[in-house]
Amino acid sequence: DRGTRVVDLAADVRLRDPEVYQRWYGGPHPDPGLLQEAVYGLPELHREEIRRARLVSGVGCNAAAAILALAPLARAGVVSEARIEARVGSSEGGSRATEGSHHPYRSRALRMFEPFAHRHLAEVSQETGLPEDRLTLGVTAVESVRGVQAVATVTLAEPVREGDLWKTYRAAYGSEPFVFLCPARPSHLRLPDPRLVMGSNRALVGFALHPDGRRLTAVAAIDNLLKGASGTAVQAANLLLGCPETAGLEMRPVYPA
Amino acid sequence: DRGTRVVDLAADVRLRDPEVYQRWYGGPHPDPGLLQEAVYGLPELHREEIRRARLVSGVGCNAAAAILALAPLARAGVVSEARIEARVGSSEGGSRATEGSHHPYRSRALRMFEPFAHRHLAEVSQETGLPEDRLTLGVTAVESVRGVQAVATVTLAEPVREGDLWKTYRAAYGSEPFVFLCPARPSHLRLPDPRLVMGSNRALVGFALHPDGRRLTAVAAIDNLLKGASGTAVQAANLLLGCPETAGLEMRPVYPA
Amino acid sequence: DRGTRVVDLAADVRLRDPEVYQRWYGGPHPDPGLLQEAVYGLPELHREEIRRARLVSGVGCNAAAAILALAPLARAGVVSEARIEARVGSSEGGSRATEGSHHPYRSRALRMFEPFAHRHLAEVSQETGLPEDRLTLGVTAVESVRGVQAVATVTLAEPVREGDLWKTYRAAYGSEPFVFLCPARPSHLRLPDPRLVMGSNRALVGFALHPDGRRLTAVAAIDNLLKGASGTAVQAANLLLGCPETAGLEMRPVYPA
Amino acid sequence: DRGTRVVDLAADVRLRDPEVYQRWYGGPHPDPGLLQEAVYGLPELHREEIRRARLVSGVGCNAAAAILALAPLARAGVVSEARIEARVGSSEGGSRATEGSHHPYRSRALRMFEPFAHRHLAEVSQETGLPEDRLTLGVTAVESVRGVQAVATVTLAEPVREGDLWKTYRAAYGSEPFVFLCPARPSHLRLPDPRLVMGSNRALVGFALHPDGRRLTAVAAIDNLLKGASGTAVQAANLLLGCPETAGLEMRPVYPA
Repeated sequence: DRGTRVVDLAADVRLRDPEVYQRWYGGPHPDPGLLQEAVYGLPELHREEIRRARLVSGVGCNAAAAILALAPLARAGVVSEARIEARVGSSEGGSRATEGSHHPYRSRALRMFEPFAHRHLAEVSQETGLPEDRLTLGVTAVESVRGVQAVATVTLAEPVREGDLWKTYRAAYGSEPFVFLCPARPSHLRLPDPRLVMGSNRALVGFALHPDGRRLTAVAAIDNLLKGASGTAVQAANLLLGCPETAGLEMRPVYPA
Repeated sequence: DRGTRVVDLAADVRLRDPEVYQRWYGGPHPDPGLLQEAVYGLPELHREEIRRARLVSGVGCNAAAAILALAPLARAGVVSEARIEARVGSSEGGSRATEGSHHPYRSRALRMFEPFAHRHLAEVSQETGLPEDRLTLGVTAVESVRGVQAVATVTLAEPVREGDLWKTYRAAYGSEPFVFLCPARPSHLRLPDPRLVMGSNRALVGFALHPDGRRLTAVAAIDNLLKGASGTAVQAANLLLGCPETAGLEMRPVYPA
Repeated sequence: DRGTRVVDLAADVRLRDPEVYQRWYGGPHPDPGLLQEAVYGLPELHREEIRRARLVSGVGCNAAAAILALAPLARAGVVSEARIEARVGSSEGGSRATEGSHHPYRSRALRMFEPFAHRHLAEVSQETGLPEDRLTLGVTAVESVRGVQAVATVTLAEPVREGDLWKTYRAAYGSEPFVFLCPARPSHLRLPDPRLVMGSNRALVGFALHPDGRRLTAVAAIDNLLKGASGTAVQAANLLLGCPETAGLEMRPVYPA
Repeated sequence: DRGTRVVDLAADVRLRDPEVYQRWYGGPHPDPGLLQEAVYGLPELHREEIRRARLVSGVGCNAAAAILALAPLARAGVVSEARIEARVGSSEGGSRATEGSHHPYRSRALRMFEPFAHRHLAEVSQETGLPEDRLTLGVTAVESVRGVQAVATVTLAEPVREGDLWKTYRAAYGSEPFVFLCPARPSHLRLPDPRLVMGSNRALVGFALHPDGRRLTAVAAIDNLLKGASGTAVQAANLLLGCPETAGLEMRPVYPA
């Protein structure tokens, strides 16, 4: 250790609690001190800590999307329960060919994997503060190469007003360079489609509240190869190095594509 | 009226209650007596009534999938709440080109429409007996031409055992000619993908129960142009006419395609 | 050898000439006598021989499509040169995952492989009688799971009249159970798309003649998993066994899908 | 006319010869003087004229791709005949929904339109100098939103050596900011796939020569919404205005996507 500052792209230091790490990753962490020291590398939640950090973690792509959808609600203390489904493109599986990525099987898939306990759930719980037993996280493979759409089916603790939710989300993201709120209308653009951010480091966040004020759907869409991984890592590195936060990340979405 | 027996492919006589019809279709029914007389045309729920009926309704494609996923649970009295998402291919929108079906916009879409109150909710409520205020039904356009995958995010009234659910579903569908239960393993085949029934009149139904015994995901997959519409209508007509129920419907799924 | 009659699905006995076999398959054939004995298993060209054969070969999927497009012209003696491109879906690559079948790379591909000398060229030459040096055969991977579209860019030896071509093709295929000629109009249906035969054992054949009477495009479309492989093998087995030729092969195309 | 300089995005002034215009566009040009005055807006062919021009035409997307594939060969005087197929994504059809763009029909299409005489042929002839009767140009709709792959099936006037072709293409494009030659190896990257330029203003050009030295396949791939239309128009406007030629056009391809 000679003082080198690191943004880690792997999953090794995303979790703070060694016990949680062991439970989700199947063994003890080889250097638990790093877990205590590292900062979770999502600038929208930890901007100031990242600036000062020596060790910044990468983010899980599904986790990043789910956290962006849920964190404002969770901080507002209104979430009773959330069941999250991350719909993902084939690039999420990595660059190595597998039976699961074989085109005849993967094309146009709507393949739901274990629907409750994807490993990224640990990150979502840690970063939103919602206890694990009030969260589920499943992953569904859909037809696309890039993109994650995290859909949170939320039950609120008590009825809320839509206007208050708008305030909550605007307060969270109004000055973020890469997070955009979806408009209330037209209705088919209210909940974001990952196509709309493809090729960019942007996240789109939207929500819809049931008239009963207690049932809510919150959605975030990102390009998993940018905001879901290396894009956010570059953003974190910019902060850590004192560069402009958006440097190298100003690509606009390519749409329609 | 000269005694002609009818299986209606349209949406006109699917609902029994004129008040419910008016609320969902925006005006009074022109002949409410037909609503009272008609039988909902899903053989899995109304086989004997269809045999004797004079007027059989068609089924909504999203409704048919959702009902097949939920009806056994609802009958068992264990459902507290269900939030349903129907993921649909482009053929569901009909044969006329619209801005929504324009390929540059529609291709690889993950477009979530109004997420709580698709009109087919009325059918799901009627046929499962679950009150409307404990159901939501949204529709999401995904990349495919055919297929509906109805995903019900269910909260159970009290914890149940997985073995009991298997009994419930087997009792409901064990002798059905067109409904197949997904196996418990491998996990990626536990919840059905519409690709697996494409080109056939089959429905695949699967479920996964959270270890807490109270959170459940129930899924049904159909080909919307067959089991979701004309296929089920032919099946109903076969019953009504005294033909073998599977006549003309024995096409096998085309997979992979 | 106890008189068992065989339809071989592999590529081992498709070629008649051991020298040609050696040139295309990189080594001498282990049992050249089988090459002499075997019948090429395309009923449209060898129906009577197949009925009496002891050993029938499978057909290459690209070869089968190219042969169906070109054979009537070749027999009529009007072909000076043909350059063929087979556009193929991902299922043609087999069931094993490879880097080429990895969805992020394979999805929406327009990947042109070595454009002149795909190995099936030997079959096309043998079955059409066109010498190898007047043929090229390339393969292009396109976005689909099933389907081969063989497009032959043909130069005719001398100008022909369109009416004569219609007579030629009708004479070849007019009484075939599985080969259909595309209509002259509307123009976008004149040259066949494999989508129109998907899930069936059918071949669609179409052509367009340039006003100069010498430049021609001839196209055949098949489902590579049926007419391009096992479907044709079953058809051949039916002939060989004296069964009705279409037994087990009457599935209709699934369209749109 | 007050001296305003114009880059026209429409098809009105692409052709120089009023007679040719009339033949392809079905009526006389309303202001033939503009045809004489305008410069065809492809900087790779007319850079210096564009700098000085008052009126610059847009380019047809299929024409631009075909011209980039063929112009070096045509200038070298080696082309006897070329038959071109442009494989196009759905965005080429424009932003208005039509039956042809209806997703259930358009998805995974391999739909070959009139294969010999797409209107852009006039531009290809004009800009390559190849007479119309030695060219054909067809268009095939394939599954993608963006991209044109122009594939020219070329017959050379006499045998050439591959090394000479490399020199010809390198001389043409070696210093172009947006045109890249495909490498000779690996073979599956030798002929360009439009996916590799998607989201950028780049063109990829590649060729393969038959061992006989006379049959050749030349291919160019572009993003039709950039290099095939507005991207090239911006490039032309940059030249005309004296700005750096690449200003506003430095987006990198988004791959895999």
